[in-house]
Amino acid sequence: MAKHWFEERDPFSPIQYRYAGARPLYSARSELQEIQVLESDFFGRMLVLDGVVQLTERDEFLYHEMLVHVPMHSHVAPKSVLIVGGGDGGALREVLKHESVERVTLVEMDREVIEVAKKFFPDMAAGFASPLVTVRHGDGAAFLDDEGRQFDIILVDSTDPVGPSTSLSTPEFFRSASEALNDGGVFAMQTESLHFHADYVDRVQRALKAAFGAVDLYGAPIATYAGNWWTFALASHAPIGREPVREPAPGLRIYCRELHRSAFVPSKALTCFTSLGSGPYRRG
Amino acid sequence: MAKHWFEERDPFSPIQYRYAGARPLYSARSELQEIQVLESDFFGRMLVLDGVVQLTERDEFLYHEMLVHVPMHSHVAPKSVLIVGGGDGGALREVLKHESVERVTLVEMDREVIEVAKKFFPDMAAGFASPLVTVRHGDGAAFLDDEGRQFDIILVDSTDPVGPSTSLSTPEFFRSASEALNDGGVFAMQTESLHFHADYVDRVQRALKAAFGAVDLYGAPIATYAGNWWTFALASHAPIGREPVREPAPGLRIYCRELHRSAFVPSKALTCFTSLGSGPYRRG
Repeated sequence: MAKHWFEERDPFSPIQYRYAGARPLYSARSELQEIQVLESDFFGRMLVLDGVVQLTERDEFLYHEMLVHVPMHSHVAPKSVLIVGGGDGGALREVLKHESVERVTLVEMDREVIEVAKKFFPDMAAGFASPLVTVRHGDGAAFLDDEGRQFDIILVDSTDPVGPSTSLSTPEFFRSASEALNDGGVFAMQTESLHFHADYVDRVQRALKAAFGAVDLYGAPIATYAGNWWTFALASHAPIGREPVREPAPGLRIYCRELHRSAFVPSKALTCFTSLGSGPYRRG
Repeated sequence: MAKHWFEERDPFSPIQYRYAGARPLYSARSELQEIQVLESDFFGRMLVLDGVVQLTERDEFLYHEMLVHVPMHSHVAPKSVLIVGGGDGGALREVLKHESVERVTLVEMDREVIEVAKKFFPDMAAGFASPLVTVRHGDGAAFLDDEGRQFDIILVDSTDPVGPSTSLSTPEFFRSASEALNDGGVFAMQTESLHFHADYVDRVQRALKAAFGAVDLYGAPIATYAGNWWTFALASHAPIGREPVREPAPGLRIYCRELHRSAFVPSKALTCFTSLGSGPYRRG
């Protein structure tokens, strides 16, 4: 049996995950949160914030490719991109695979996360060295209020909607994001698990529809996020199709035309989970 | 905090699941395995075999609808159906929703599982009372060797491929199943997690291709199975499409035409996970 176990403490989940053979490499408390880096045989290095696994070396490609490439391939030629959160650099790495991109602004609340990513996940964080990239430290919601600049793509790559990230799922934030989105632009954000947080998924869908005009829902099965039918909201000023509008960017490990198409959650599935809710099970 | 925790013991998984608030209702040892029934606030009743969660009242519909309705809707009018395993009755309940079905044979190794299902999961196990159903106790592989009868649909709804279920993923079993399948028939089986067991998924795909002639792979994100991008192999004597060939059966909670289509795993995704393998992570 493995000697070291890492026990996740996920306040949002009825299942807690225990990781076999996860050895601690780093632990510190920033102004905002507890930051840990672990290393396990199966998953490689793992980034943990406030006790919850954010990513592992083995499988972060799936989350980051799906968060980034579905919206990016829904736009003919995205030039200016805003990433809210994403201090680990994974989303940034994927954005930079698109040749049309001219500038990326990344607004991360916790500068310590970026430093830890550069040190322990240097390949993932390589994009911070790009001359196209500007990093701002602070709250994404406050940034959008102050900033007149317009974006073709806005990505919200946040932790769970508690604590530091609470401001990123309010109607006010969505309105600011809608105003900062260019015509033809696409907004995407992670919106938790369909299995465990269907009420939240549904609430964000409605709030985005009100703020942007059009919304859709897609997902990916992420093994290291409890509830695992992980969802992403896609919002825009006018309805966008469920097909990529151009050839895939180079260097992608799993994203492809077929996966883009098949990632969208059928409306019957959303209705089914919304009717189950996020509370205790009630025998029908 | 919840007082009762159920800690899964899954020999196949690098993540062990802990279920909050899972109270024991029943525990016994059959000739073949340990059988437990628990009840949790979030998941309702849970069936556990040899320490591994097999199903929960809350989410079993997703696994059973996907195991059954993708192959069933790939056949114009399935009349005779064989279920190997499936002693909980969930797959049987779904099969009986198809009006074309005239007879179902269910071969379960462990008769205690059926008795426990009837007692603790009566709605799920209601199909055992149907006059169309014949239950046989024994090994599915031995049953197929002895039996000349032909089936339109063969479903393998087994526990993990260790212990009692080992005989259900051998080339010999697949050859027997292929011989017992009618022309135009469809075989489906659960083949574990793409994230954690890609080597196994790939091995079964190859073995089924050799035995049947045509094979495909689809999946569903099951929150209560570690690794959760759960896969199902679909095999047949000639290639079948990725579209349902008729309207959905009545009374389905999540299965629909869109979900059928989008469940298929893109070949790029299988290649990606197969190249990662099922062993320790190696930095590229």
